[in-house]
Amino acid sequence: MNAGITVVKIGGNVIDNPDALAAFVKDFSKICGPKILIHGGGKEATRLSAKLGIETKMAGGRRITDRDTLDIVTMVYAGLINKRIVSMLQAAGCNAIGLSGADGNVIRASRRSPLPVDYGYVGDINPENINTKLIKELLSMNLTPVFCAINHDGNGGLLNCNADSVASAVAMACARIAPTNLIFCFEKAGVLRDINDETSVISNITPENYDALIAEGIIDGGMLPKIDNALKAINEGVKSVTIKSSAQLLAVSGTCISR
Amino acid sequence: MNAGITVVKIGGNVIDNPDALAAFVKDFSKICGPKILIHGGGKEATRLSAKLGIETKMAGGRRITDRDTLDIVTMVYAGLINKRIVSMLQAAGCNAIGLSGADGNVIRASRRSPLPVDYGYVGDINPENINTKLIKELLSMNLTPVFCAINHDGNGGLLNCNADSVASAVAMACARIAPTNLIFCFEKAGVLRDINDETSVISNITPENYDALIAEGIIDGGMLPKIDNALKAINEGVKSVTIKSSAQLLAVSGTCISR
Repeated sequence: MNAGITVVKIGGNVIDNPDALAAFVKDFSKICGPKILIHGGGKEATRLSAKLGIETKMAGGRRITDRDTLDIVTMVYAGLINKRIVSMLQAAGCNAIGLSGADGNVIRASRRSPLPVDYGYVGDINPENINTKLIKELLSMNLTPVFCAINHDGNGGLLNCNADSVASAVAMACARIAPTNLIFCFEKAGVLRDINDETSVISNITPENYDALIAEGIIDGGMLPKIDNALKAINEGVKSVTIKSSAQLLAVSGTCISR
Repeated sequence: MNAGITVVKIGGNVIDNPDALAAFVKDFSKICGPKILIHGGGKEATRLSAKLGIETKMAGGRRITDRDTLDIVTMVYAGLINKRIVSMLQAAGCNAIGLSGADGNVIRASRRSPLPVDYGYVGDINPENINTKLIKELLSMNLTPVFCAINHDGNGGLLNCNADSVASAVAMACARIAPTNLIFCFEKAGVLRDINDETSVISNITPENYDALIAEGIIDGGMLPKIDNALKAINEGVKSVTIKSSAQLLAVSGTCISR
């Protein structure tokens, strides 16, 4: 495959907002060359759980996926949201194909160890267990895979995975096929020097300036694991990772993490 | 494609019964050559609607799919049931790929006219609007497409379709690729001469003996549209249509409808 692959991840700020989703779908369809979309779940699963009287259990700020919750996220992520996005992309002229990890055995996950915390039916992904051959074939057919973060264990069980991790792992697998750029869309313009100033986007993060940005206290909290993941992807062959606003998908914008 | 294609449809009697589903999956995986599965919805959508306090509206014995119901069937059919079946097939060694009609634009449906009865978001399928090229490519990749009966209109909307009709239309489309046999699985051993006698299966129905079976009052009621559909599929090039028990998938059994 000659053309580079673009892997884009979207989360709740796009999925939960019909106007933002419609605008995003239009922009995403315009990306040239082979591309892949990974979506998270948004608030719909929590809302459905509440309506059904299923308690949302958390541990250390993370959702525990018990049997009922697994059914709900499978319905909402792999059914409602995935097919909604795919049908919208089709209408925009992008030949999307929605996939869980079970479909074509494209992503096999391992259930997370129940120690020290049992998160239930939650899976982690090893990029080695991504079916790169199938992804390559689908892209050669001009199809655009749209992954929800529900994967399978190979033994008939489904597992709820973190969509950021799925995006990183898919990008690392794609890097074996062709030069791959990964874009994480979120609600802010990029990684900000000053959290209150949307214009203070840090344009570039490299392994060289990363430590200084941490030492200065500019990057901290929830942004640390995101950048760590991005740097891990870069180390595994991904050409660049960009963190940017979903409303600015096609603009040169955001924070680019590269070597 | 040299080998014939087998298209199998299952309904609620398999989907709603975990033991029956597990046994069916095992049998289905053993079918040699290219194969396709189409599944209906079973009772899960009705149960979920009831839990959510959404009234199931019927007209002339058929479900009306309003906006809320469309979301529910998309969640249950395209999400929960489709991914459950696909992950079970994967575990049984069958490389299944779950698809709604929106995925890869594989099945485009037209919303049914709101006159004389408005069934809401319900679609009908013209076999001409089945993406035979994609089905052929997936089968050549040794993938087994698993269709839920949720399809798209090409304009970003999803439509709830009748799974029997999807199965017939897919079989007719496949008949253009390779010799195709269609199997409808249901709870009985086949079309019965005597509804109370499971051993009274009519082995063969052809256009020649069909009229006599109707005239004798042996075939009537809900079986008439099924046989009419089967004969239509035969006229459109499908080699045979078999109506049989889901528990007897691999046995020579049931009612075979052919020329």
